[in-house]
Amino acid sequence: MKPENLLMIPGPVQLHERIIKALGSQMISHRSKDFEEVYEYCREALKPLFGTKGDVVIISGSGTAGMEAAVASFSKVRKITCVSNGKFGERFAEIAWRYAEVDHVKFEWGDSIDLDKVRESLENGSEMVTFVHNETSTGILNPAREICKIAKEYDALVVMDGITSVGGDEVRMDEWGVDVCIVGSQKCLGAPPGLAAVAINEKAWEFYNERVPYYLDLKAYVKKAEKNQTPYTPAVPLFLALKEALKIIEEEGLENRIERHRRLAKAVREWAIEAGLELFPRLNEYSSYSNTVTAIKMPKGITDSELRGTLRNEFGITISGGQEHLKGKIFRIGNMGNVSKREIVATLAAIESVMLRKGVEIKPALNKVYEVLG
Amino acid sequence: MKPENLLMIPGPVQLHERIIKALGSQMISHRSKDFEEVYEYCREALKPLFGTKGDVVIISGSGTAGMEAAVASFSKVRKITCVSNGKFGERFAEIAWRYAEVDHVKFEWGDSIDLDKVRESLENGSEMVTFVHNETSTGILNPAREICKIAKEYDALVVMDGITSVGGDEVRMDEWGVDVCIVGSQKCLGAPPGLAAVAINEKAWEFYNERVPYYLDLKAYVKKAEKNQTPYTPAVPLFLALKEALKIIEEEGLENRIERHRRLAKAVREWAIEAGLELFPRLNEYSSYSNTVTAIKMPKGITDSELRGTLRNEFGITISGGQEHLKGKIFRIGNMGNVSKREIVATLAAIESVMLRKGVEIKPALNKVYEVLG
Amino acid sequence: MKPENLLMIPGPVQLHERIIKALGSQMISHRSKDFEEVYEYCREALKPLFGTKGDVVIISGSGTAGMEAAVASFSKVRKITCVSNGKFGERFAEIAWRYAEVDHVKFEWGDSIDLDKVRESLENGSEMVTFVHNETSTGILNPAREICKIAKEYDALVVMDGITSVGGDEVRMDEWGVDVCIVGSQKCLGAPPGLAAVAINEKAWEFYNERVPYYLDLKAYVKKAEKNQTPYTPAVPLFLALKEALKIIEEEGLENRIERHRRLAKAVREWAIEAGLELFPRLNEYSSYSNTVTAIKMPKGITDSELRGTLRNEFGITISGGQEHLKGKIFRIGNMGNVSKREIVATLAAIESVMLRKGVEIKPALNKVYEVLG
Amino acid sequence: MKPENLLMIPGPVQLHERIIKALGSQMISHRSKDFEEVYEYCREALKPLFGTKGDVVIISGSGTAGMEAAVASFSKVRKITCVSNGKFGERFAEIAWRYAEVDHVKFEWGDSIDLDKVRESLENGSEMVTFVHNETSTGILNPAREICKIAKEYDALVVMDGITSVGGDEVRMDEWGVDVCIVGSQKCLGAPPGLAAVAINEKAWEFYNERVPYYLDLKAYVKKAEKNQTPYTPAVPLFLALKEALKIIEEEGLENRIERHRRLAKAVREWAIEAGLELFPRLNEYSSYSNTVTAIKMPKGITDSELRGTLRNEFGITISGGQEHLKGKIFRIGNMGNVSKREIVATLAAIESVMLRKGVEIKPALNKVYEVLG
Repeated sequence: MKPENLLMIPGPVQLHERIIKALGSQMISHRSKDFEEVYEYCREALKPLFGTKGDVVIISGSGTAGMEAAVASFSKVRKITCVSNGKFGERFAEIAWRYAEVDHVKFEWGDSIDLDKVRESLENGSEMVTFVHNETSTGILNPAREICKIAKEYDALVVMDGITSVGGDEVRMDEWGVDVCIVGSQKCLGAPPGLAAVAINEKAWEFYNERVPYYLDLKAYVKKAEKNQTPYTPAVPLFLALKEALKIIEEEGLENRIERHRRLAKAVREWAIEAGLELFPRLNEYSSYSNTVTAIKMPKGITDSELRGTLRNEFGITISGGQEHLKGKIFRIGNMGNVSKREIVATLAAIESVMLRKGVEIKPALNKVYEVLG
Repeated sequence: MKPENLLMIPGPVQLHERIIKALGSQMISHRSKDFEEVYEYCREALKPLFGTKGDVVIISGSGTAGMEAAVASFSKVRKITCVSNGKFGERFAEIAWRYAEVDHVKFEWGDSIDLDKVRESLENGSEMVTFVHNETSTGILNPAREICKIAKEYDALVVMDGITSVGGDEVRMDEWGVDVCIVGSQKCLGAPPGLAAVAINEKAWEFYNERVPYYLDLKAYVKKAEKNQTPYTPAVPLFLALKEALKIIEEEGLENRIERHRRLAKAVREWAIEAGLELFPRLNEYSSYSNTVTAIKMPKGITDSELRGTLRNEFGITISGGQEHLKGKIFRIGNMGNVSKREIVATLAAIESVMLRKGVEIKPALNKVYEVLG
Repeated sequence: MKPENLLMIPGPVQLHERIIKALGSQMISHRSKDFEEVYEYCREALKPLFGTKGDVVIISGSGTAGMEAAVASFSKVRKITCVSNGKFGERFAEIAWRYAEVDHVKFEWGDSIDLDKVRESLENGSEMVTFVHNETSTGILNPAREICKIAKEYDALVVMDGITSVGGDEVRMDEWGVDVCIVGSQKCLGAPPGLAAVAINEKAWEFYNERVPYYLDLKAYVKKAEKNQTPYTPAVPLFLALKEALKIIEEEGLENRIERHRRLAKAVREWAIEAGLELFPRLNEYSSYSNTVTAIKMPKGITDSELRGTLRNEFGITISGGQEHLKGKIFRIGNMGNVSKREIVATLAAIESVMLRKGVEIKPALNKVYEVLG
Repeated sequence: MKPENLLMIPGPVQLHERIIKALGSQMISHRSKDFEEVYEYCREALKPLFGTKGDVVIISGSGTAGMEAAVASFSKVRKITCVSNGKFGERFAEIAWRYAEVDHVKFEWGDSIDLDKVRESLENGSEMVTFVHNETSTGILNPAREICKIAKEYDALVVMDGITSVGGDEVRMDEWGVDVCIVGSQKCLGAPPGLAAVAINEKAWEFYNERVPYYLDLKAYVKKAEKNQTPYTPAVPLFLALKEALKIIEEEGLENRIERHRRLAKAVREWAIEAGLELFPRLNEYSSYSNTVTAIKMPKGITDSELRGTLRNEFGITISGGQEHLKGKIFRIGNMGNVSKREIVATLAAIESVMLRKGVEIKPALNKVYEVLG
């Protein structure tokens, strides 16, 4: 029997039974009172997760749609500084050149951001900075507060990809000075993929570009949101699921949720080190390890498909490999959403089991997990 | 007790129980073999519905996202002729000006398209024609074959909105000469909202514009589709549901499905006429009544909210009103997707009941429905 | 396409979407706090439906299990009077002979109960009377209050089958003097089949027979219910569904629910008469038509399988035929549970359509339905 | 956040997603072709699991209902030998006295059956022997083959409780000489609780007692089963779920399924021994450890509620404690149904974690699990 699948990847995440049930609902009209209540609930419940009092709208589309909506809607700028140290940071640059000149401040995947380079770019006249808060491809948490501080010195608009941090780690848009921030439904929020929420503060509208793609025009979303509607037919089932996911977050409490994510990620890291494995990110004084996904170097003696294939086939556990040039060089364990201790011990025990069987030189280290998760 | 809701609107449509179950599934990775099989199935199963042997890709977004992807991806043109006779035809024009000069050939909502005006516009140098096959806002079916014939004379690219016809009425892209066609998941396909499929023939690529919005870049979708993947995280649950919806279509047979839609729409129309109501569209020799949605003028003696509100509250039936300036002037009954005789008789009987109670001068006319549906 | 099925039979009934969702839940331990809360809720919520302040327990089994548990648990009697005028009344007699001597006071199916015959039987020394409140096989409502009055004169225990009345029509155990009453989950409660609830008043225990079948021993159920548990593993999913069904009843309000059942049944009856059909039951001054199921004589010109088969295949509507010797002679339309006007108009319109097509001499009569349900 | 629950108890078991979906279905009539197909499938698919070519019928009720139906239906005997060495063996005796004289051959809970005592009882004139194959309360597998051999010498009818072995361990009714055997839906079959299947061979009918309780009369079930129906309204959703569960078994293959159960139970046992814990059952040459549930003595330094409460609250894992006088003295881990390696490593790691934190003197021993499950 092929075991049922457990997703331990950095999104899409495993769905809580309540969310599956919300998803599996008969359709309702998107112009009904019922839908309006769902949308209103979602928008309001997302605000504290973004750490903002500003507007939040939801696009039926992936996180990438949210990133492009953010950049394109506010692209009445001459130059954009795109800071990257991983796949998703680079994606911002791929989007941005369609709307303005781009200065791509690019670091190696896994490296930390050198803030001086960011300042240098701004010094050269950028009016917008884009960066990724939690770089999923490498397991690094970038210094959002510090980047904002520099951007503010130059009065540049800050567009932050919070796709894999909002709802799982601390995000304080208003306090830090993030102007536009994006989150994906299928990450720390614990909902299925297909929705991107964008939080927008007042300043952003100074940069509004009316030639923004019609489908991604945040002004249209904000305007319709006044009546708790969307400009185009929304992906209704995903909104029903998102509402349930946000109710679960509310029940848990944001503080508790962030603390849980942090502790689970710490358990994974300490297990890895105790086992004799090596974490992938190269930190500097401003960066830290991600609290929602851990990237670990693939040890000698086992291939990507041996590790991940066996986990999937025998234990029903799906973890992620490295992307693009990191393929086969790292593996990644997500702990986003509604993950508990149980899934963490199962995943780490399963990895130990597979590695030991293959003769990889690691030391069983679940005791560390027991310690951290206590 | 508020009765459970039955959607008789032109999308989103009532979901079959099998589709609800597919929707309510635990998540799978979008990079898994399992998802690839789902995506492959959907793309292949959509081709006969479009009447094409060309490529089909699926965007996580509403029908509007599909419309914009079509126009923007192939916008290496100087001028676009946007033919409209209703809300959705006009939407094409709102999209198109972002990418090229627009010649809006605009008719009154409810009027038929004057083909001479289309030819005139093309004569003036357009390289693309956009139009809506089945204009949902007014219940009219536009002459796709004739418009294509004219466009071909001028070698213009034809982009057709088949959002509410594909899967419910006859669409023959390759035969008619439609180059790019869009369908929405929540209409005649019977799936939940949130996906737009775009069918593309070879010719379209001559007009590919690489500055197309990143999220709507059909080249990226086509390239990834070679491995049955999507460029960005897809709305996985909606794909699972779409697959089930397409299986139901396959089981019914496309011919039977189109025949069923036609007969149900005919029953609604003949009932309306027998009852003493008036159909809204003004046909000419090329246009016909829609086979997927019927627009009927609101009779004297009842308001929109009296009719639709009572239907919803007492019978649990949701029908549509008119949009924008037609608000209160018409009501619309959809018969898209997996609707059977039962829903039609229930809806028409309920409308009779409400109208008669309000003193509207209509004649009970279910006997006509019995005749047509026999 | 075969339309989705709508059950208009006297149980199992169509499930509300909320109940389907409750049913489709991951298992919980039947010895957990969670289950105990569910069981407690169900027992308490059932009491007002029975009209009792006494104990209510729930058996995992069909209504028949409940009937037998009631008779067997309290069978320390010499003789039982089983009053019957239909299939389910007769079932009591089939059960009762296993536990005591039986005096079967038997009337023709469809006839009303002659109370003098009941009195006569009691006069001859019975200590228990069994009867069916709402006789589903014939669509008649028996005079519970009157039977109880007579039984009380002779101090006999009253065991009433309320399987198809409790939750849909008025039942007042304590007021009327019913000592033990049974309801089935899949009838007016609107839940799926598989549970039988038994309400028991104090007097019943005087007749407790300890040789009752182990599985049907109501003393064991009552004892375990003190801790909100069941003596044997319960059918957990059915309890989850029943809880949701009872919540829906609470939200509707029992008064409203009974009123709705009565009005819907009245609409069916008046439609039948107006159409020229004939109701099956032969009433006397004490009996009345059932408010939860209507039995109508099959008219000339159509067979059972033509009527019910066509309804099922073309309209997706399932109604019931006659049972045993009534097969082909009557058809029965249930309106138990969470049925709304919509299902009634759909069913009656569909029956008209099928009968007219077959040349049956009826007169379309939905106008009567509009009047009654107005 | 309270983690989602994982049931590792000896029933009800965790449901596979496919089974949950089957459960959450709209109702169908129990007199429809659709239901008949479901019932036929279930009956046929159960036969190989029982190891019989005889009849199989399914009662809507718990395993206990099945036990009583078996004893009562075939109770035209003077005396019954009830062999017990645990809670469920004793239950047979509690049932049997209602139908005949009982000779209770009773062993301590956890002890093995002394076959000489069985023979002795039969020597004294019993015509039926009852026993439990897999005694869930103590984790022991009783010697079915040997008991049958002795019973056959005396021509006694053998009624075996296979409630927690059929579908998870080897059962060969026809080969061993078991005449009547019962299985519960919520154990090794992996379905929800609420159904009991009874397999019956020809010989049993010689002992048919027509005064059997009406609801538990196996003759009525067998007769109706000829048309793939049940005598009373069945718990339809549970049958839909059982069908899906049986399809999963068919897909896995019975051999593989038994092998998986055996290996998982072995992993639990070897882990326990390596960790320094003690298994509860006291084997003799004929008995063996259960392959579907493992009973382990509670070690010093931790209470039942500390162990099981923490597992449930922090890890979302439910295991069982001891029953009645064994409460607090043992804990039990089920591996029935569709359990994979993942759930086993998660459960054992969680137990280690909780015990170590409480200072219990155990040695982490997951390496043994890795070895056995390899």
